Amino acid sequence: MGILGASGYGGAELLRLLKAHPEVELVGFSSRKYEGRPLEAAWPQLWDGRLFAAQEEVLERAEVVFLALPNGLSMEIAPEALKAGKRVVDLSGDFRLPPEVYEAWYRIPHKSPDLYREAVYGLPELHREELKGARLVANPGCYVTAATLALAPLAAEGVLKGAFVVGLSGVSGAGREAEGTAFAEVNENLKPYKAGGTHRHIPEMERNLGRILAQGRRVRTHGEARAVRLSFTPHLVPMTRGILVTAEAEVEGAWSQESLEALYRDFYAGEPFVRVLKGLPETKATLGSNRVDVRPLYEERTGRVLVFAALDNLVKGMAGQAVQNLNLMLGLPEETALPKEGLWP
Amino acid sequence: MGILGASGYGGAELLRLLKAHPEVELVGFSSRKYEGRPLEAAWPQLWDGRLFAAQEEVLERAEVVFLALPNGLSMEIAPEALKAGKRVVDLSGDFRLPPEVYEAWYRIPHKSPDLYREAVYGLPELHREELKGARLVANPGCYVTAATLALAPLAAEGVLKGAFVVGLSGVSGAGREAEGTAFAEVNENLKPYKAGGTHRHIPEMERNLGRILAQGRRVRTHGEARAVRLSFTPHLVPMTRGILVTAEAEVEGAWSQESLEALYRDFYAGEPFVRVLKGLPETKATLGSNRVDVRPLYEERTGRVLVFAALDNLVKGMAGQAVQNLNLMLGLPEETALPKEGLWP
Amino acid sequence: MGILGASGYGGAELLRLLKAHPEVELVGFSSRKYEGRPLEAAWPQLWDGRLFAAQEEVLERAEVVFLALPNGLSMEIAPEALKAGKRVVDLSGDFRLPPEVYEAWYRIPHKSPDLYREAVYGLPELHREELKGARLVANPGCYVTAATLALAPLAAEGVLKGAFVVGLSGVSGAGREAEGTAFAEVNENLKPYKAGGTHRHIPEMERNLGRILAQGRRVRTHGEARAVRLSFTPHLVPMTRGILVTAEAEVEGAWSQESLEALYRDFYAGEPFVRVLKGLPETKATLGSNRVDVRPLYEERTGRVLVFAALDNLVKGMAGQAVQNLNLMLGLPEETALPKEGLWP
Amino acid sequence: MGILGASGYGGAELLRLLKAHPEVELVGFSSRKYEGRPLEAAWPQLWDGRLFAAQEEVLERAEVVFLALPNGLSMEIAPEALKAGKRVVDLSGDFRLPPEVYEAWYRIPHKSPDLYREAVYGLPELHREELKGARLVANPGCYVTAATLALAPLAAEGVLKGAFVVGLSGVSGAGREAEGTAFAEVNENLKPYKAGGTHRHIPEMERNLGRILAQGRRVRTHGEARAVRLSFTPHLVPMTRGILVTAEAEVEGAWSQESLEALYRDFYAGEPFVRVLKGLPETKATLGSNRVDVRPLYEERTGRVLVFAALDNLVKGMAGQAVQNLNLMLGLPEETALPKEGLWP
Repeated sequence: MGILGASGYGGAELLRLLKAHPEVELVGFSSRKYEGRPLEAAWPQLWDGRLFAAQEEVLERAEVVFLALPNGLSMEIAPEALKAGKRVVDLSGDFRLPPEVYEAWYRIPHKSPDLYREAVYGLPELHREELKGARLVANPGCYVTAATLALAPLAAEGVLKGAFVVGLSGVSGAGREAEGTAFAEVNENLKPYKAGGTHRHIPEMERNLGRILAQGRRVRTHGEARAVRLSFTPHLVPMTRGILVTAEAEVEGAWSQESLEALYRDFYAGEPFVRVLKGLPETKATLGSNRVDVRPLYEERTGRVLVFAALDNLVKGMAGQAVQNLNLMLGLPEETALPKEGLWP
Repeated sequence: MGILGASGYGGAELLRLLKAHPEVELVGFSSRKYEGRPLEAAWPQLWDGRLFAAQEEVLERAEVVFLALPNGLSMEIAPEALKAGKRVVDLSGDFRLPPEVYEAWYRIPHKSPDLYREAVYGLPELHREELKGARLVANPGCYVTAATLALAPLAAEGVLKGAFVVGLSGVSGAGREAEGTAFAEVNENLKPYKAGGTHRHIPEMERNLGRILAQGRRVRTHGEARAVRLSFTPHLVPMTRGILVTAEAEVEGAWSQESLEALYRDFYAGEPFVRVLKGLPETKATLGSNRVDVRPLYEERTGRVLVFAALDNLVKGMAGQAVQNLNLMLGLPEETALPKEGLWP
Repeated sequence: MGILGASGYGGAELLRLLKAHPEVELVGFSSRKYEGRPLEAAWPQLWDGRLFAAQEEVLERAEVVFLALPNGLSMEIAPEALKAGKRVVDLSGDFRLPPEVYEAWYRIPHKSPDLYREAVYGLPELHREELKGARLVANPGCYVTAATLALAPLAAEGVLKGAFVVGLSGVSGAGREAEGTAFAEVNENLKPYKAGGTHRHIPEMERNLGRILAQGRRVRTHGEARAVRLSFTPHLVPMTRGILVTAEAEVEGAWSQESLEALYRDFYAGEPFVRVLKGLPETKATLGSNRVDVRPLYEERTGRVLVFAALDNLVKGMAGQAVQNLNLMLGLPEETALPKEGLWP
Repeated sequence: MGILGASGYGGAELLRLLKAHPEVELVGFSSRKYEGRPLEAAWPQLWDGRLFAAQEEVLERAEVVFLALPNGLSMEIAPEALKAGKRVVDLSGDFRLPPEVYEAWYRIPHKSPDLYREAVYGLPELHREELKGARLVANPGCYVTAATLALAPLAAEGVLKGAFVVGLSGVSGAGREAEGTAFAEVNENLKPYKAGGTHRHIPEMERNLGRILAQGRRVRTHGEARAVRLSFTPHLVPMTRGILVTAEAEVEGAWSQESLEALYRDFYAGEPFVRVLKGLPETKATLGSNRVDVRPLYEERTGRVLVFAALDNLVKGMAGQAVQNLNLMLGLPEETALPKEGLWP
């Protein structure tokens, strides 16, 4: 097991989870910024003594490589790694969308369009079968995971017509070196950003839900997808971790609170990391865990369906999901090394 | 000038603003909990030396009385105060809704239904003329002020069909003695509450917008109103002050970003406390001020209109608005003693 | 394994750690407030389905009982539990001080003064040998653990003359039902409390350091102690978890930064949960872990020694230390089920 | 009135206070970064429409100039401004220390050593007489103001022998572009920094107290000073504004809580911005105000004196004090435009 990009927040969570994984060995981790320096230089919470290695060294030693790099780099590294017989879990956006869609939203020319056809979309609740044995996994991010899992039961039932999705995220979602995240200006502050249909996770949400609408419960990454239109408005919330998605869905057919809850409970029955609540979710309850808490609510006054989904953006929304995918790829029990319960308070 | 209920957060802001008001004198303030004790016993930020008086004493000495009391008390106190020739600004919900609607949503029997017919709704941007000379003002709260001002231009234009309104509030909105606001469980946490159409500010928002739909720009409290249906989902955000309303409105007609901005700029032209932004608002920019920052956004992908409105829930959403109403009632310049600019950071 | 008092913050951390412990079985947990209700009623972060049991039932089923109760209750429960052949880890202050000192500082009459003679003081770094096989362990709290470990090397060297200790604590240290912890008044606020020598953890700190001064490195709970006088000033910091102790020690003899660091490194060499840093500690680096980060600094200008110690008040300062004691009592590897690394960010 | 450096936090507070000042006119403000752009580009809380001017223009138009610039720039600008007949309030460290001390601690060669002899130290509570009519004022910063005012009564009494001073600061004290202040790593975190006698405000604290020890109550900037040795350990606290200084002073003579309180009350009697409390101070109580809250405590156990002082680091610790100095320089009432009461919560 190796990690490229181990000095970002996704890297920190991968380090935490993989160091405690009983079935795999972490043979190396790299970071351009910290190469040759001890792990503690980047991460005061860790106590290890090992040094950040060179990227090439990690690629050579590891059998499975996690790419926790900025968008645009994985498409350069993944082809070689796969050629060398490695398996890859990519945490960037590089293999999540068809190359032409990717290029339109990310404004980065795609260098490995062929590889996209091989990538499996890493949302285990929907793509579990495909992920077993996958060589290249495109691990989705926090907003998309939350929004997709919030609306998937409605899509699988074929009743989802559209949704107004509000995303509320802690600051760590912006990454370690993000601009505009100075404490004094983020604390005691709340603001929308990239509003009006400009956030690049929109096409991924629409694609996910469109695939379920077309294929039903168990979907194939490269199978058919229907068109579905979402509005998505992200906000920055003055907290470090946690994502909440609040979605108002327009649905077909006659629903009640009972039938809605039954739909969600059936859909997620047996899922190890999705909990359908009877009350409203709160982000803190997922802190440090790989769990998603979901709550659907039928709103009599408007005939719409409200759904809330809360998760830890660095775990189920990033590194935890990557480890869940790893477990599936290697045929290990899916829950290995992944906490289902959080830290409180 | 007198304040009943001066030991709550609304009271604290009234004290701050009225003590600095050059045209009125604060002759007394009361609090059942602190009666006879110095102001500093309740409020470490104040430095005054005066004592909390008895409620009766304040009522006797003051010509205008602010009622910053829990719902259900103003309807008992206001009639006597008015009879004694006083004027009243009521910060509770007691006189904001027709008694039968009030009783349905607040589950408190209304004791002064007749007085409701005399109360003027205290949103100066819409009811300015009515407020001049009013004897009893029903001062609206934070969510309603933000949501109404966010959507009023669309309603006045007659194109508002409905809206999905998400409310995001700092914790002080719950009041000083609220349950469930312990730091360790609110900090680093985000959660919806009273979701699914149960929040009692919903009928007030619908009534406000319905009046504008029926009457246009300058509305009368007891004039005609049309029906309009809103969805409203409030959330608790880990910060002390600040409200952001994010609304997705369904509108009639053909709109563009330009025509939408023109509508909002025209509607709020000359308003001393409403700023129509070119960028996205953030709550911190309104801290301590009586300003509302508004931003409309036309969303091409969905044909819907997004509107954001940010304000300080204890100022424009409570005590500042009450002082603005006072200024209008007394024929003083509307902006007296009300900051238009905030504290940063 | 059983927990009494499982609905407080210490209980939550015990539940988290014990549920993941591979060598022991959690057979029950109780809370007067939640008896008969599911675990999730008290703890949204947990996902279990089991119910809070009656206290008697837990006492009967468990072989080792953790008492996470308010001061004054353990002295009633412990005698019976021990009589029934159980072992007890007590997280309260009941068995940490000689009964006469306890009564003077806690103002609670001590009901089991004899049992105090049998209790072993649960600070593994100093009392490891004694703890093996102990029947009743008095688990110290957060401030005392941090202050003792910060100054122990100086005491063991015999050079500690006195110290000015400043304690800085996150809000969870006050417990789940503490007064004066409302978010709106604690956030963006910082304040000292119980200043001027009135905090009841002072005699425990003085006793710990006095024992080391008299006995050296490995101390016996009921062995000799010398007098040493500390000043201790606690402060409440607007964060949930984390304690930092900043101590200025007056010392005998000639010291340099080098000799001071050597002393600390030698003293804590091999300790699994104490890390002597080369830089300054920060509380967040210990989040969720059982680690203490310590840094001594020789201050040339004043000839004094500054020492910093940071830990997670609910883990090494409470529940983690209790599990560490459990491991020693049962002869298990001391580090079992205890994270040495934290969550970041 | 003009401000150079109006895009930093000190500049923001100067803008807020000076725009509301009834006796002076703000004729211009500059910022290299924002020159030619509207005020709102830098400051979302302001609503003005004016543009940031060029530095030269501000210097030409204003009669009094506030220099809110990084250390090292004021010593270049001040000489010319004074030559042109302007008066200067300098918020940097350039004129606070004798040039040779400045060079040793700031490691910047001093370019206007002669001007230092003319500068008056801008702490009104001690230098009030000197400040009237001053042409160049060296405005002290937050830690120094708090520590000096905390210990000044003991120094004036001649009994201060030394002190261990702990500084606890909100993040805004580090400035707008400070490194290491990312929300995700500062929030829920607490850490010391520049510990061990390395913080450059130490010589200024020692000089202030040394002057009082030598000269008594009313001191002259360039008068005699005695030597006094302090330990000072600053910490970063996860909040935006607010400074608390906790000092343990070693004193001569016999003291009691009563005699100590009497000393402080006498010393600060009549001071408009210093409040001697009967309880413990908290930083939030000073938010947005120019007030300092002070509390001395005699600690019987150790014979030492504990003193706490809380203030808003951007107001009394920076811009408010500068305006207080301005008022004195111009012969205006000292309290003009300066709030004595804070915002709560």
